[in-house]
Amino acid sequence: MVKHVESLGLKANVIQGSERTVIAAVGEERVDGVSTLESGPGVDEVLPILAPYKLASRELKADTSIVTAGSLSVGGVQIGMIAGPCSVETEEQIVACAKAVKKAGATALRGGAFKPRTSPYSFQGLKEEGLRMLATAREETGLAVVTEVIAPDDVELVGKYADVLQIGARNMQNYRLLEACGKSHRAVLLKRGPSATIDELLLAAEYILDGGNPKVLLCERGIRTFESHTRFTLPLATVPYLQSKTHLPVVVDPSHGTGHTNLVTAMAKAGIAAGADGLIVEVHPDPAHAKSDGYQTLDFKAFEKLMAECRRIAEAVDRTL
Amino acid sequence: MVKHVESLGLKANVIQGSERTVIAAVGEERVDGVSTLESGPGVDEVLPILAPYKLASRELKADTSIVTAGSLSVGGVQIGMIAGPCSVETEEQIVACAKAVKKAGATALRGGAFKPRTSPYSFQGLKEEGLRMLATAREETGLAVVTEVIAPDDVELVGKYADVLQIGARNMQNYRLLEACGKSHRAVLLKRGPSATIDELLLAAEYILDGGNPKVLLCERGIRTFESHTRFTLPLATVPYLQSKTHLPVVVDPSHGTGHTNLVTAMAKAGIAAGADGLIVEVHPDPAHAKSDGYQTLDFKAFEKLMAECRRIAEAVDRTL
Amino acid sequence: MVKHVESLGLKANVIQGSERTVIAAVGEERVDGVSTLESGPGVDEVLPILAPYKLASRELKADTSIVTAGSLSVGGVQIGMIAGPCSVETEEQIVACAKAVKKAGATALRGGAFKPRTSPYSFQGLKEEGLRMLATAREETGLAVVTEVIAPDDVELVGKYADVLQIGARNMQNYRLLEACGKSHRAVLLKRGPSATIDELLLAAEYILDGGNPKVLLCERGIRTFESHTRFTLPLATVPYLQSKTHLPVVVDPSHGTGHTNLVTAMAKAGIAAGADGLIVEVHPDPAHAKSDGYQTLDFKAFEKLMAECRRIAEAVDRTL
Amino acid sequence: MVKHVESLGLKANVIQGSERTVIAAVGEERVDGVSTLESGPGVDEVLPILAPYKLASRELKADTSIVTAGSLSVGGVQIGMIAGPCSVETEEQIVACAKAVKKAGATALRGGAFKPRTSPYSFQGLKEEGLRMLATAREETGLAVVTEVIAPDDVELVGKYADVLQIGARNMQNYRLLEACGKSHRAVLLKRGPSATIDELLLAAEYILDGGNPKVLLCERGIRTFESHTRFTLPLATVPYLQSKTHLPVVVDPSHGTGHTNLVTAMAKAGIAAGADGLIVEVHPDPAHAKSDGYQTLDFKAFEKLMAECRRIAEAVDRTL
Repeated sequence: MVKHVESLGLKANVIQGSERTVIAAVGEERVDGVSTLESGPGVDEVLPILAPYKLASRELKADTSIVTAGSLSVGGVQIGMIAGPCSVETEEQIVACAKAVKKAGATALRGGAFKPRTSPYSFQGLKEEGLRMLATAREETGLAVVTEVIAPDDVELVGKYADVLQIGARNMQNYRLLEACGKSHRAVLLKRGPSATIDELLLAAEYILDGGNPKVLLCERGIRTFESHTRFTLPLATVPYLQSKTHLPVVVDPSHGTGHTNLVTAMAKAGIAAGADGLIVEVHPDPAHAKSDGYQTLDFKAFEKLMAECRRIAEAVDRTL
Repeated sequence: MVKHVESLGLKANVIQGSERTVIAAVGEERVDGVSTLESGPGVDEVLPILAPYKLASRELKADTSIVTAGSLSVGGVQIGMIAGPCSVETEEQIVACAKAVKKAGATALRGGAFKPRTSPYSFQGLKEEGLRMLATAREETGLAVVTEVIAPDDVELVGKYADVLQIGARNMQNYRLLEACGKSHRAVLLKRGPSATIDELLLAAEYILDGGNPKVLLCERGIRTFESHTRFTLPLATVPYLQSKTHLPVVVDPSHGTGHTNLVTAMAKAGIAAGADGLIVEVHPDPAHAKSDGYQTLDFKAFEKLMAECRRIAEAVDRTL
Repeated sequence: MVKHVESLGLKANVIQGSERTVIAAVGEERVDGVSTLESGPGVDEVLPILAPYKLASRELKADTSIVTAGSLSVGGVQIGMIAGPCSVETEEQIVACAKAVKKAGATALRGGAFKPRTSPYSFQGLKEEGLRMLATAREETGLAVVTEVIAPDDVELVGKYADVLQIGARNMQNYRLLEACGKSHRAVLLKRGPSATIDELLLAAEYILDGGNPKVLLCERGIRTFESHTRFTLPLATVPYLQSKTHLPVVVDPSHGTGHTNLVTAMAKAGIAAGADGLIVEVHPDPAHAKSDGYQTLDFKAFEKLMAECRRIAEAVDRTL
Repeated sequence: MVKHVESLGLKANVIQGSERTVIAAVGEERVDGVSTLESGPGVDEVLPILAPYKLASRELKADTSIVTAGSLSVGGVQIGMIAGPCSVETEEQIVACAKAVKKAGATALRGGAFKPRTSPYSFQGLKEEGLRMLATAREETGLAVVTEVIAPDDVELVGKYADVLQIGARNMQNYRLLEACGKSHRAVLLKRGPSATIDELLLAAEYILDGGNPKVLLCERGIRTFESHTRFTLPLATVPYLQSKTHLPVVVDPSHGTGHTNLVTAMAKAGIAAGADGLIVEVHPDPAHAKSDGYQTLDFKAFEKLMAECRRIAEAVDRTL
């Protein structure tokens, strides 16, 4: 076994225990073959010690990164508030939304033009037409535009209109897309996949950082668990945990994270209390007739209330909103 | 099929759809046999409509119940704060703890005398001797005592010393224990099992309520998911969701819910922001030498900081701490 | 840190890596305080090396234990087949069931007299009257009786009638019950809790073994996951994994493990192919009118078919059924 | 509420219950807005009745589809056996593998040329060079080639060399990739995402079918749960459940599904016993030095043993291997 460890270029330290023997394999860097040791005779477990990401790690950069894109700034004292509809539906809708969320205090507008949908028969978004409507809404309000990109070939097109490229949960490990965003000069909002570990999220971010783009926002939007009373389970401990491991700012999505209008505000407040650097919230003029996600979308009045309540929490953690 | 539904004492309403037919089985109350319909020929799914709990339901009682036990009150404007060590170890330890947490603002003392432990070889608690130490700590500080009971036969004994009987997560569906607590005049803190649904939690509470004891506190302490960077995943959306379904007050346990000292304070704050009526936190004079759970236990100084920070959040949601 | 490790009675081996330092804490036995090291300054993780169970471990006893109780034998070449209704309802029902499953080839009869039910309003079982009916069924057929015990105080009573005491999934960590079963001379069928790890299951078995009772059968009956098309998710890899770690025989429950009549037979066959030493299957003369679990219960004809198909799989793995 | 239902083009049937009222919304087809009803006043839950997929459904096509690609045929009496290394490393390696697995009875060769890797620093595959090596292996053995495609732009290139395009678990909801594969004339092996529901898997298949490609193989390769003793949890009940819902053939991956060499064979056998139409297994001449996944990869001798044991199970379910 010691020989096998050494054949992988590692130094083997042998520690004799009373019931088991531990062989510590020490090396300059991560070695792919280490996990193969598990199949060796008499080997019970291989336990990794090193974190597998580098550029994303807090060890590399002690201060939280502040990511700025137009009117949006995330990572500093001010909490970034990204709000808007799930899908861009009409120019009227998105401009009305932009004005309403800006008035309430949002610092960026969200809205999907390219929509990844579970069913091929669902509304797939207005595509470039939707992007143009988002640009119009930005002109009218000054709000930065956050919108999803779902394929590497679209990165350039979406980047022409958007201030922040959103990578959705389903695409967190779409590596070509990560690489394409790594070459963009736009900031990237990277959503955690519903069954991704924190290491996997940080390694996905590492693809973007390694591509040359340092402007990455991480987003916790809920994981899949046995719970069925919420659409996903929103694990807010991710916020302080991520902040201890990475310098990248952390955004919370209480809309997807709960899937129910009447839970969004409570979890938005909880997210800020947990230390989130930003929030992303679904808002629509008429949620009951939204083309997607209406059951988790706030109307303007509910969003104003959310802002008022969140502002008080923000102050209680020495931040602004 | 219609006949089968009627043989169970239900009225069958038939609704013809274009691809499927829905038979709505309507009855005065819950019927055990309904789920057997699923095995009938041509039956795809049986979907229940009614909530299965009654006494716990918000429909029964619109106002949140305020549960009071000695110095502890949970459910009103003031947030209940239960703090203390995982295990009672010595009189000196528990009295010191009680004084420290009281000074910091806690309204009740926790401490385990009967400890359910995963391994038969782990420390199992001081039992009645521990209960006496808790009583001494109460005498010295006036703090109500919250302590776990792990078997129906112990309910009377533990009830002699404790103000609140805690039912641990492993025992949430120990029905004999629930029934025994239902006959006690002591308040009961019922912890959610790590894979229990909300309906299961409320039905466990229903056992206690149905036994005649109305003083039930529900506690979210984390669920088991694929996440391994925390001991459990703490789903705070449980707080507003439970509050919409039940009149019973809701307590959050950020210590078990995270399993890491450095995440406890953030999640305590998030719990209050989400609307929790109370918190239960592990505190020990010297966590590094605690007999159990040291890795998730705060020392006195960290607890004072937690209280100071939580107090600001409490104010921001118009509550006191 | 080295001092802290030594203060816990462990020997500290220090291994210098290029980015991190590993301190290997080596001791004669498991030490409770080790996990507290996690909160130490600069400590990232504490990784345990030793399995925490002893008497249950395969290291202690290389051969699989054969557990025998009346007509039932589990752990040898012959696969144990435990079949019968969820609940004992009438003498007629349980005797008819016993005769039918015996004729089809079952080697033991299951049937619940004490029923742990999620709701206090559900049928709770016939209690001692049900036990007497089970004893009658045994007299008529010679089949060993497997029935659940839900409280320590009932162990003696249930043990008077039963050949095997079943500990249900909800009670896997009801330690008083485990201890009481440890003092019984009856064999014990211990079901895995729906969110229990394998270590937790083996430590629960360890409570029984440590109490002096070596006759423990482990039962995989499904875990709670995000999947909702089955009642639980039945992870059959548990079978070979358990067999590599413990000498105790392993039983699979395809009825609770799937929750749907039409999936039971396929998973029974898969269980045997995976190496299960026994199966436990719900069978009822008229599942559509069973008092509990009808949707996952086979009628006599379906059980005969299951037996015929499973027998072929058993032969294909050099076992008998 | 009735008006709202009707405004969505549905017919509303009102059923009065004693405690709640059910409004059954009946329509010719799926309506996007239905879920928005949940946010209506007094609405507790919206329960869907219809399956959302069409082309994949068993209702559409009663017989199981037989998908054929070169030497591979899946869905008939013969079980398809796809075997080979995780990654193509050298021509020598892949040709040796192809010969060995063919000799043992495999009907197709797997091997990754484009590798989606969690870390940007891991080996990413030999790309087109690897595809050429796979083609050489096919020439030498006649085995059909199954290899992964990770981006829409690569579908044409990979399709030039491969007989079956594999869509990995991370890309199950990469809709552009699904659409591109829908336009290919190659068969597609679609792996279930680790947190995908069965409906989501079938809707992903629906994208390919809807694009015009009827040759889709579904693959269960394990889901993410709290279990950590296996890499993923392999839920074999998926096999009979999928077969009841869809006409598409179902393949099981016991290598990724367990993540441990010593569990692969037991789960391969269990998969066949559960009714799988095919298996996909990782095999490498020297797993201990494989560039990826070595810990779950069989060597030639272990694969021969797997084949011999699986053949016996196949016979016991009236199939051939």
